[in-house]
Amino acid sequence: MQHKGFVRTISIVRPSLNDNTADAQRLEQSLKKELSIDNILIPLSVLKKLPSNLRSWNFEAKAVLFKNRYSWILVDLLDPASDRIVLGAAIDIGSTRIVISLVDLETLQETGEAGFDNPQAAIGPDILTRIHYSNQDEGLTELNSLVINAVNLNISKLCKEHGFKNEDIYIVTGAGNTAMTHLFLGIESFEIIKEPYIPCVNIPDTLPAKSLNLDINQNGVAFLFPNIGSYFGGDLISGILFSNLDQKENPSLMVDVGTNAEIVVGSKEYLIACAGAAGPALEGGVSKMGMTARPGVIDKVWVDPDTNDLKVHTIDEKKPVGICGSGMIDLAASLFLSKRIDIRGKFLKQNCKKELMEKDSIMEFILVDKNDSGTGQPICLSQVDLNSLTSSKAAMYTILEVIVCNTAGLNFKDLEKFYVAGTFGSFINPVSAISIGMLPDIPVETFEVLGNSSLGGAKVLLKVPDAFERVMKIRKSITYIELNVNQEFMNMFSGAKFYPHTDTSRFPSLQISV
Amino acid sequence: MQHKGFVRTISIVRPSLNDNTADAQRLEQSLKKELSIDNILIPLSVLKKLPSNLRSWNFEAKAVLFKNRYSWILVDLLDPASDRIVLGAAIDIGSTRIVISLVDLETLQETGEAGFDNPQAAIGPDILTRIHYSNQDEGLTELNSLVINAVNLNISKLCKEHGFKNEDIYIVTGAGNTAMTHLFLGIESFEIIKEPYIPCVNIPDTLPAKSLNLDINQNGVAFLFPNIGSYFGGDLISGILFSNLDQKENPSLMVDVGTNAEIVVGSKEYLIACAGAAGPALEGGVSKMGMTARPGVIDKVWVDPDTNDLKVHTIDEKKPVGICGSGMIDLAASLFLSKRIDIRGKFLKQNCKKELMEKDSIMEFILVDKNDSGTGQPICLSQVDLNSLTSSKAAMYTILEVIVCNTAGLNFKDLEKFYVAGTFGSFINPVSAISIGMLPDIPVETFEVLGNSSLGGAKVLLKVPDAFERVMKIRKSITYIELNVNQEFMNMFSGAKFYPHTDTSRFPSLQISV
Repeated sequence: MQHKGFVRTISIVRPSLNDNTADAQRLEQSLKKELSIDNILIPLSVLKKLPSNLRSWNFEAKAVLFKNRYSWILVDLLDPASDRIVLGAAIDIGSTRIVISLVDLETLQETGEAGFDNPQAAIGPDILTRIHYSNQDEGLTELNSLVINAVNLNISKLCKEHGFKNEDIYIVTGAGNTAMTHLFLGIESFEIIKEPYIPCVNIPDTLPAKSLNLDINQNGVAFLFPNIGSYFGGDLISGILFSNLDQKENPSLMVDVGTNAEIVVGSKEYLIACAGAAGPALEGGVSKMGMTARPGVIDKVWVDPDTNDLKVHTIDEKKPVGICGSGMIDLAASLFLSKRIDIRGKFLKQNCKKELMEKDSIMEFILVDKNDSGTGQPICLSQVDLNSLTSSKAAMYTILEVIVCNTAGLNFKDLEKFYVAGTFGSFINPVSAISIGMLPDIPVETFEVLGNSSLGGAKVLLKVPDAFERVMKIRKSITYIELNVNQEFMNMFSGAKFYPHTDTSRFPSLQISV
Repeated sequence: MQHKGFVRTISIVRPSLNDNTADAQRLEQSLKKELSIDNILIPLSVLKKLPSNLRSWNFEAKAVLFKNRYSWILVDLLDPASDRIVLGAAIDIGSTRIVISLVDLETLQETGEAGFDNPQAAIGPDILTRIHYSNQDEGLTELNSLVINAVNLNISKLCKEHGFKNEDIYIVTGAGNTAMTHLFLGIESFEIIKEPYIPCVNIPDTLPAKSLNLDINQNGVAFLFPNIGSYFGGDLISGILFSNLDQKENPSLMVDVGTNAEIVVGSKEYLIACAGAAGPALEGGVSKMGMTARPGVIDKVWVDPDTNDLKVHTIDEKKPVGICGSGMIDLAASLFLSKRIDIRGKFLKQNCKKELMEKDSIMEFILVDKNDSGTGQPICLSQVDLNSLTSSKAAMYTILEVIVCNTAGLNFKDLEKFYVAGTFGSFINPVSAISIGMLPDIPVETFEVLGNSSLGGAKVLLKVPDAFERVMKIRKSITYIELNVNQEFMNMFSGAKFYPHTDTSRFPSLQISV
């Protein structure tokens, strides 16, 4: 069955002596009627054999369509009797990891997915290094080729794995942050990181895939999500699309916690966004033992109600080798709830007892004994690590407060939905996050995990034609607020650095006796 | 000085911390303001170096623009300080002859012109043969390459001759009949000549010049005039644009006499068109001595008022070698006015005397004695030639009557202007044409010669941005009438086969005594 997506089987009115309209305009008429639209572009590649194709196909055809800002685009016209699959590829163009998902544009089924590390990491793990590199001779070309070649390679692999061909792919939708989008397009990126931080482009047009050297169907097109500035990229616009925030009756919120925390609050009436350097401690790399999720990494921590001991769960239940962001939040919550730390987030020697050791004058909490560890070393959390987490959770809460309460003028309890996006967010236990005062104390069912919302939005754009206009509208309607780290912010931040907060009345569910 | 054409020097608002709009959208804003428009497409090629270019150009730029059906297109963005010329090339894509005219898109001056024979003639002199050929393996590719290569060669020559470079050309506008337009685009043309005569395309979109293998600037675009069917091509739409028929307050008429006579009557209120096989006798090739204009060809004939002898003028005043279409009309008028032929167009022996000779039972009128001829043979007009001319002039008058009087419901005297287009038309003496009843008896000053109106319209389209919408409107608003050669037509035709007409009251200026 065909859905009302970007592939439509249409009938074209047959010509007669009384109606000498050209084949192309005849086709236009059918498409305009099918889509209820006025504007459509037919490419030269389709025109070349249109007369004989229409006649051999008995004036029926399968149209592969997409859009640009001003019109629909006929991407290709196919034999309606052909059983060749028509695919789209949604790409989350992450600076660390890239994920490609194939979508059958007729059935709207997802037919394959592949993730791989962004090979630009070889030039520099962070975007800043890459953009500096892009400003050297051939640097941009090299960075561009790295990502495009990797995408092509993985598209080929994915197709081979599932019995498809690269030319079965007609549309690519890609969502990435502003810098990655620029590097993917091969356009100058240097001004993004230089005051006043100006991207080359906010709204990339739909382009021939060939012009980006993407190895898909030769008539294929590619569209990258637009951005609203250097610090609010297409990945977030894609996430908003995926969350349907722009269509909510009541205010909702989406937070994407990566290196930065990007937050959008709003509804169908308005969208307010900000991005802040909230969460470095929440992703692997900052804490000495922090790491990204992989087998053996501690992803859950809880207090045994009988013994008051801390219990851990590891990914794939291997011997513990470290702890990831969500495990860190659980751990902090467990430490606080079991009174192993005080409301300032400092270890309480009297309650930790043997679990604490001092190393280079810094207190370290031994979560896993070296005998139980997969590394032969104990798994520890130092006071320094914890302070970093405390700052991060305080920053997150403060930013949420600024945007939801001070800017949008809402109370947290007004939020219908609180979407947590990003791979990291998928694993956060909201109860733990509330316990440490990182997330506001609202009903647990309000929280919803979106997973890879950047990829999700790119898939929506392949499946739902109206999504294109929603993307443009989202981009246009977002009010982006610059976070001013002023005295007021610092005062709020100070209160939020406590566990859960200086104002405990904000966290009634914790039933803290003051 | 810059005109308000397709090249504009613009200023772009500088970015600041308070306005982080991307460079591309900043450029869009400037262009939208400059052009008072909503839609503009910026190509990837311009984006690639936009940030560094804008900054090194001090946020000024020279924009080369064009349009498609749904938006303006930024073709390229240039250094405002550069003194490189920015050119457009208008092309009359004739099936016999192709003419290219270069236009400076800033000063709107014409800077060079070249005409050359259409090399497709080697495949077949007429369009029918070529289209049949195009239907064989590689036939279309071969025909397409012939014309494109010849255009490229002549563009290069023309540029070299005037000190330009191919890459100075950013826009190509081409006007040709429907078949030539298809062959130029390299799209299937076969249905044009097969009932029910359906073109592949009525409205070709603006295309990257590269996609047509045109050797101009790599970012250049090409636009071919739209057609309204197999028998009413872009060359005529271009002619209407050039004549301004679509903007006239009062009804006017344009006739393009080539192999067919194409006629358009109308004003800013309406446009009615028809095409009929009117004029084969009027172009070189039908009459045994008929030929296209070249040195020695008789282009003017008149009656010496003193001697009643026929006098001739030849091109470049060489010895006569033949007679061209305009000369034929003069000759017929002279024969009629001097009573050498009767009202049926038959030679009157008693008035021709020695000028007549009989050859193979056919009467021949000796216009130039063999002693005065440049060929050593007399220049003659046979009764067969004359009959052919009589039919042609009658067909022309009848078609004019059908479209102007019967269809548009006008009288000939209502016509504000009577434009004669085409190279052939340029040489017709309207007084002679009226004398033989080929053209209606309206004031001589009503007639205006347009010359190569197809090329003319293509040049207008390069110079005047509004012309693009006029072209689309002209195409859409034309009512094309199929000439029905029915009994009524045949009756009208019979009357028009007389000199000047059975109804002499239609030609009062001839002061014919009935």
